[in-house]
Amino acid sequence: MTVQGLPMAVPAQDLPARVRIHEVGARDGLQNEKATVPTEVKAEFVRRLADAGLTTIEATSFVHPKWVPQLADAEQLFPLVSDLPGVHLPVLVPNERGLDRALALGARRVAVFASATESFAKANLNRSVDEALAMFEPVVARAKADKVHVRGYLSMCFGDPWEGAVPIHQVVRVCKSLMDMGCDELSLGDTIGVATPGHVQSLLAELNEEGVPTSALGVHFHDTYGQALANTLAALQHGVTTVDASAGGLGGCPYAKSATGNLATEDLVWMLQGLGIDTGVDLGRLTATSVWMAGQLGRPSPSRTVKALSHQE
Amino acid sequence: MTVQGLPMAVPAQDLPARVRIHEVGARDGLQNEKATVPTEVKAEFVRRLADAGLTTIEATSFVHPKWVPQLADAEQLFPLVSDLPGVHLPVLVPNERGLDRALALGARRVAVFASATESFAKANLNRSVDEALAMFEPVVARAKADKVHVRGYLSMCFGDPWEGAVPIHQVVRVCKSLMDMGCDELSLGDTIGVATPGHVQSLLAELNEEGVPTSALGVHFHDTYGQALANTLAALQHGVTTVDASAGGLGGCPYAKSATGNLATEDLVWMLQGLGIDTGVDLGRLTATSVWMAGQLGRPSPSRTVKALSHQE
Repeated sequence: MTVQGLPMAVPAQDLPARVRIHEVGARDGLQNEKATVPTEVKAEFVRRLADAGLTTIEATSFVHPKWVPQLADAEQLFPLVSDLPGVHLPVLVPNERGLDRALALGARRVAVFASATESFAKANLNRSVDEALAMFEPVVARAKADKVHVRGYLSMCFGDPWEGAVPIHQVVRVCKSLMDMGCDELSLGDTIGVATPGHVQSLLAELNEEGVPTSALGVHFHDTYGQALANTLAALQHGVTTVDASAGGLGGCPYAKSATGNLATEDLVWMLQGLGIDTGVDLGRLTATSVWMAGQLGRPSPSRTVKALSHQE
Repeated sequence: MTVQGLPMAVPAQDLPARVRIHEVGARDGLQNEKATVPTEVKAEFVRRLADAGLTTIEATSFVHPKWVPQLADAEQLFPLVSDLPGVHLPVLVPNERGLDRALALGARRVAVFASATESFAKANLNRSVDEALAMFEPVVARAKADKVHVRGYLSMCFGDPWEGAVPIHQVVRVCKSLMDMGCDELSLGDTIGVATPGHVQSLLAELNEEGVPTSALGVHFHDTYGQALANTLAALQHGVTTVDASAGGLGGCPYAKSATGNLATEDLVWMLQGLGIDTGVDLGRLTATSVWMAGQLGRPSPSRTVKALSHQE
């Protein structure tokens, strides 16, 4: 399930030699599915992603099941996949209770999730931006005391469905707070997919100016307006080496106006392979995994590359 | 039909101030539709595209109707739209007979279409690459003698479904032949959508080395693997200011393995607007046009931006 000899590998100037893909399909993807996927299918999905060469696979979320019923089986799922060799399995933890549950299962990577806008903080966490940060502070402190790696997600970094364009300084302020409390890395989320390449590079530059190094920054683009891969290229040109993507383009934002969601890992891998950038991912195996998962979900993958390679549609 | 205040305009470094969009939906798009669209609907489509601010709208093709029955009404269509003020209406002409037909109707811009690979030259024109060039030579000479603007399309510049990756020097040779015979501009086609940004920049650089200036080069990307917009960004960074796109993402290549075809004009305009690059296009009007055309064709637009802005799907 690949195209013989394509894409042709032709490096571009000033790009990183290696990119780490932070695979979010099993968490961000399945969290936004209407259907609840059986635990064993989720475990098989994670195993297949690992088998395709992904080494950072966000596994699940320890949010209260009332809020995310799709991932209510976190306790059952995590032990089924936690022995995959050489694979990091970060999990989402909203608060100390979530952290307790994750640590009890042996999680070594956790993520908190903040918002750059008041509207989304209220909608997603029922708190102000600063109240949410205050909630995360002891989570991050305890995780770091346990030498657990902490990622800080930041939503609505470029635009917000209620507030429109989000000023860069507003994003930078929250990023600095997350770094100050001890996050090891940040993931800059374009939750509604409205970013464009100049905006991406300006935010990254401003963060650098304010002391947040590019090495601590990952990008998380949504393809709602078809911009995700162009924005990723802009981020790579700035030196970013951590890119979030979702196998088969699974998932989406319930607040965005379209079903199109996360950047598809396959579309990303096609570009990186063409650029001669090492990811360790086998595109054929990954596409086969997404086709299999699409079958489980009963609908085709929105990824262009999956469609093209699998003759879907 | 726009998002209030989005995308936020944030220019990036070293990009052109203005981009000319060469709109191909009415020709390249409709040529690949199974259904034959009534002539009056095509004329209305062209008028609406002009009303949305597009100033170069490829109208139709003077290929023999036996080969492209969808555009067999070129003689009837062209006079219906040829009086649009300030709009260029290039048409395809494969040979002298086609040129005669186009000139008789007053066409002032024509395009010939060559192939970078022998396999596609054979499939598309039933000729070798050089035989096709020989066929175009008198067409271009006569057009130039009449002060008619000539575009040279070149297909399969990055990959070919039969031959795989296409060597850059092979593409450059055909480009030089087209320029030498008098073409005013070239359109570099990624007919099966396999290009990636480094490959794009390498081809452009090699063409410059061989004496073809960037000002004579347009790019024509297909979104089969989701790469079209990232490749466009790479081309803009190289200085390209002419970009082909198809309203609503209409069309596709019958030889590619997927239904996804041309870069959607709306996705392109979203990025350019976000980059602060002037195109003269009104995104809301353009999207409304594509939604209207999708209704005529009885299927939704594949453009991400059209889907998001129109709540399609």
